[in-house]
Amino acid sequence: MYDLLTGLSVIEASSFVASPTAGLYCAQMGAEVIRVDQIGGGPDFRRWPVTESNDSLYWENLNRAKKSVALDLGRPEGRELLQALVRATGQFITNFPVGGFLSHEVLAAGCADLITVRVMGWADGSPALDYTVNNSVGYPMLTGTGPAPVNHVLPAWDLLSGAYAAFALLAAIQRRTATGVGGEVRVPLSDVAIGTVANLGGIAEALYSGANRPRLGNAVYGLFGRDFVTADGQRTMIVVVTPRQWANLVLALGLDDAIAAIEAARGVSFAKDDGLRFTHRDALYPLFEAAIADRSHADLAAVFDAGGIVHSPYRTMLDAVQDPALVAGNPIFGQADNPSGFAYPAAGAFATLPQDARQPPRPAPRNGAHSEEILADRLSLPSGEIARLIDAGIVGVA
Amino acid sequence: MYDLLTGLSVIEASSFVASPTAGLYCAQMGAEVIRVDQIGGGPDFRRWPVTESNDSLYWENLNRAKKSVALDLGRPEGRELLQALVRATGQFITNFPVGGFLSHEVLAAGCADLITVRVMGWADGSPALDYTVNNSVGYPMLTGTGPAPVNHVLPAWDLLSGAYAAFALLAAIQRRTATGVGGEVRVPLSDVAIGTVANLGGIAEALYSGANRPRLGNAVYGLFGRDFVTADGQRTMIVVVTPRQWANLVLALGLDDAIAAIEAARGVSFAKDDGLRFTHRDALYPLFEAAIADRSHADLAAVFDAGGIVHSPYRTMLDAVQDPALVAGNPIFGQADNPSGFAYPAAGAFATLPQDARQPPRPAPRNGAHSEEILADRLSLPSGEIARLIDAGIVGVA
Repeated sequence: MYDLLTGLSVIEASSFVASPTAGLYCAQMGAEVIRVDQIGGGPDFRRWPVTESNDSLYWENLNRAKKSVALDLGRPEGRELLQALVRATGQFITNFPVGGFLSHEVLAAGCADLITVRVMGWADGSPALDYTVNNSVGYPMLTGTGPAPVNHVLPAWDLLSGAYAAFALLAAIQRRTATGVGGEVRVPLSDVAIGTVANLGGIAEALYSGANRPRLGNAVYGLFGRDFVTADGQRTMIVVVTPRQWANLVLALGLDDAIAAIEAARGVSFAKDDGLRFTHRDALYPLFEAAIADRSHADLAAVFDAGGIVHSPYRTMLDAVQDPALVAGNPIFGQADNPSGFAYPAAGAFATLPQDARQPPRPAPRNGAHSEEILADRLSLPSGEIARLIDAGIVGVA
Repeated sequence: MYDLLTGLSVIEASSFVASPTAGLYCAQMGAEVIRVDQIGGGPDFRRWPVTESNDSLYWENLNRAKKSVALDLGRPEGRELLQALVRATGQFITNFPVGGFLSHEVLAAGCADLITVRVMGWADGSPALDYTVNNSVGYPMLTGTGPAPVNHVLPAWDLLSGAYAAFALLAAIQRRTATGVGGEVRVPLSDVAIGTVANLGGIAEALYSGANRPRLGNAVYGLFGRDFVTADGQRTMIVVVTPRQWANLVLALGLDDAIAAIEAARGVSFAKDDGLRFTHRDALYPLFEAAIADRSHADLAAVFDAGGIVHSPYRTMLDAVQDPALVAGNPIFGQADNPSGFAYPAAGAFATLPQDARQPPRPAPRNGAHSEEILADRLSLPSGEIARLIDAGIVGVA
């Protein structure tokens, strides 16, 4: 937790991954992010992984440091309260549909400079999710050794869309501060995905070559990088991106003469050219395979670290989680009183501001924990009216 | 291109994916982003994919709409010019090391409220890349069907770190506007990766269960979703995240009675519970496999679309790029005069602001194309002095 966004308040009506992470990143930087959910929780409130008492470890991590207002969004009075909260706040993050009671036009009718950031599936409003958008742009057909497609397990498009939505919210606020103009910003997963293919050169490459990139398993396209196995059976990734790393890797493995022989035979120099190291991988990789298979991982790791060579053994997520350098001793983590009752390292902001004190992470709210506070503060509802709404089942409290 | 960030100027000294995308997202929203590179190009200036004339299709897409100043950063005078540009501008995005001539302390000595956003590998400053960070947190051991680990091809950690860095830059500017205080914001890939594992519930899950999640191939954890093959051999992804989608999927495939029989036999109801649909996948998936294998993809797609069911056939990137709905007819794309000379659809901002006119995408700059303009405007260097610097090889021009 940092205080970069102190003073900013955002209403969030969202579910799944992308839209909640946009709110999470803002909350971890000090914004007041108020989730408004169906009483009892929205569609992802019980999403796996869950504890034995069916508390979602997923939900309670994606919604840290937020407040919760619970409303019956199936009834007009609940919907109107959400609309009123959006208008009274002026900033709104959502993945609700473009049309309907949370359309920007409807909301802006009572708040002319409202900023709505809306995460969508397809840009035309039809439904899509990370997994289906990923198929649509072709990555599963490039992943793994084939022939079957391999989906990524990391919901990368959701995550990128969420971070981009948080960026777009602040960009829109910056313009409003300068000009007074708000508006809607739509972030479709499909455009994040195909736009990313474009940004990485993928559209240009496919149209230039008229073909698909070869499927490379764990090798990296266009440079020297793939997995190797050490004498003691440790599979490890090695990637070279600078001349110094290449020189040090060749030196560390005693391959100077062998590399020089390939360079002489093929009339090339690998010293400064990622592309040549990739083009001639048929000759290079077997040399490195043999040299690495000859030495232990501990031995190689020490030499690689000394040479600034980028490498990393494969390990399981459980091993990663139990690595003190990565989690227990990492200052981005702290303790928080989670709704599930289970205690574990809780993440704060990804970023570190070395000159600022980091405040500990905060827990996700219980459904409706801040209903009374927010309805009183934001909408100036008297306590008797709030009590009536609770009795009528329009407002839920924790 | 949109104008949300008009008036913001940023110096970028960066390479590879993460740091350049942070600048790209800002430039596509209207900021003036000035890349400062080594004369002739930095370490990624020729990165693959490249054209036959060795122009990088990767570089020219990651650096659209930016300006370019070329300096000899190997000499003190070139380094001092970059430092002066950063101080004169006040905002800096980089992946240069924490120490050295671009350390925040050195730069802020001449610009007390400077904001530096620094993308890093490991948080302690040691080198890491997307591929090695990914190994370190365990995703390759969860991807594919096993037993071998599978790296993602999409540089997801780079991309997420870049978008988060752009968000963090605007957040830091927001605080500086309010308080006058700048500072350094460090975004290590390693903390983005392990922080994301935490945000998705992965740390909690691993510590709660004491085990790794099962490896599921193309099936999605914790809900109903995986790949199926139609009668005409089309592999397609289907994912269910709402009760309505479930009801419509069961109806579309005529599985009502068969599902009811499983529910009766096992004493559960699948209507509203993602987790139960996952737990009982041993019974459910074979039913759906058979029903889907019985019908053509076209037939199923029509019924699925009508029912709001989220599905997507697998296809190659070349097929995706040639889909008019995704690229040629998609308003996020336009034409730009690329340095490579090759013409193809160029991407603008991922986001769409429906109330604003979208300006066409702009090309990446040629190395040094804006050296004279920026040195004159930003540092008030007289033309004679700029000519001397060019003659001395300290400044490069396109």
